[in-house]
Amino acid sequence: MTPTVDALLFDVFGTVVDWRNSIIRDGRRLADSRDETIDVDWAAFADAWREEYHPSLDRIRRGKEPWQNLDALHRESLEELLDRFDVTELTGDEVDHLNQVWHRLDPWPDAIPGLLRLKPHYTIAPLSNGHVRLLTDMAKRGGIPWDLILSAELSGHYKPDEETYLTAVDLLDVDVDDVMMVAAHERDLNACSEVGLHTAYVHRPLEWGPGEADDVERPEDSAYDIVADDFVDLAARLDAPPIVG
Amino acid sequence: MTPTVDALLFDVFGTVVDWRNSIIRDGRRLADSRDETIDVDWAAFADAWREEYHPSLDRIRRGKEPWQNLDALHRESLEELLDRFDVTELTGDEVDHLNQVWHRLDPWPDAIPGLLRLKPHYTIAPLSNGHVRLLTDMAKRGGIPWDLILSAELSGHYKPDEETYLTAVDLLDVDVDDVMMVAAHERDLNACSEVGLHTAYVHRPLEWGPGEADDVERPEDSAYDIVADDFVDLAARLDAPPIVG
Repeated sequence: MTPTVDALLFDVFGTVVDWRNSIIRDGRRLADSRDETIDVDWAAFADAWREEYHPSLDRIRRGKEPWQNLDALHRESLEELLDRFDVTELTGDEVDHLNQVWHRLDPWPDAIPGLLRLKPHYTIAPLSNGHVRLLTDMAKRGGIPWDLILSAELSGHYKPDEETYLTAVDLLDVDVDDVMMVAAHERDLNACSEVGLHTAYVHRPLEWGPGEADDVERPEDSAYDIVADDFVDLAARLDAPPIVG
Repeated sequence: MTPTVDALLFDVFGTVVDWRNSIIRDGRRLADSRDETIDVDWAAFADAWREEYHPSLDRIRRGKEPWQNLDALHRESLEELLDRFDVTELTGDEVDHLNQVWHRLDPWPDAIPGLLRLKPHYTIAPLSNGHVRLLTDMAKRGGIPWDLILSAELSGHYKPDEETYLTAVDLLDVDVDDVMMVAAHERDLNACSEVGLHTAYVHRPLEWGPGEADDVERPEDSAYDIVADDFVDLAARLDAPPIVG
């Protein structure tokens, strides 16, 4: 039976937004905007950049580095990648602009329709490792209708550290089992389950591109409170009817 | 000259919402909903409740009590007021409901029209002594189009302690002079000026009811970056054109 909850928290990168295609699009635009073009495989670049993500966070989670926001961590890996991909032509401003692409990621096509159905019935907020500013910029640009912005930043920890979930629950001022975490990643959801949140898995086989789709395994229905195809399916399972019709 | 800023922070009680008329309305509704009616001067009750506000906060600000959210502080003064106004008939649930009225305050009529004009041009957020949950409930119920919810709660201090403003600026990830505080109260704005934020005063002569309107003195135009009649006037002064026409 679907649990009754007050608030839904959403993982963002990969779950709400399609980081890979957004980076490919922005990279190509940047390359095309220059007088002297640059030749980069932006899909490979996007994947490599995202692959640096967990190692960066883990250095902070294990206390090897003090807390820094994602702009700083993305910038550190970006410098290294530009070198690895032999992109030497970009100006400082262009590198800054490219680093900010994480503030400009596009939602998956079903994300906003699903959130608009859920919003009248639940308090909806991101709970991302992205910092408050990044999530605010992304929502404003993309029209993501959050009720409030929650972020790992507010706890000074990164997911899946339990402090991130518990700080969000505390700010929502509800019991832990009044909250459901929605994510496309089992690592995130499993950490939530351990501290008592409800969980909804949303399947995003295209997160790492069509070539990797078959490797994204969909968990069994019994693994989480809800296992959904996308945000519209999630809304239906949470009894949030379509706005029109 | 009007300064250029990225983000606008708004005081809420009295500035965005009309606490006095909202409490009068809710109190009357509660009294009317009962089989056995109760006779209370809800305007006097609202004023008395709000008058307990600064003393409550100041006990925490001076370190005499540990941090508690406004629900707890409002509840403490509500119990005392029910006694003082000789209201003995309410059930526990009715007292709980009445205490939550601070989550159900209505915006002044110009607030949402002004915010909708400002939102395409600025990041807009409350910065209130109300806690995150209270501000979220109020926005959701009243359709207040915040980009994110900021609150004194995130700093563990109450306004006008400087930590409240500086924590908000830190989360916005901008320089302090990229932010403007908007409030109907000079005490709030003066504390902001001291730490370097820009300031906009909005005149709310009716905050304490028509009988007190003449006592709410409008500061001179030079006292703040902007002195505005209301939120629509504020939008015009910040070059935010009407959405229609």
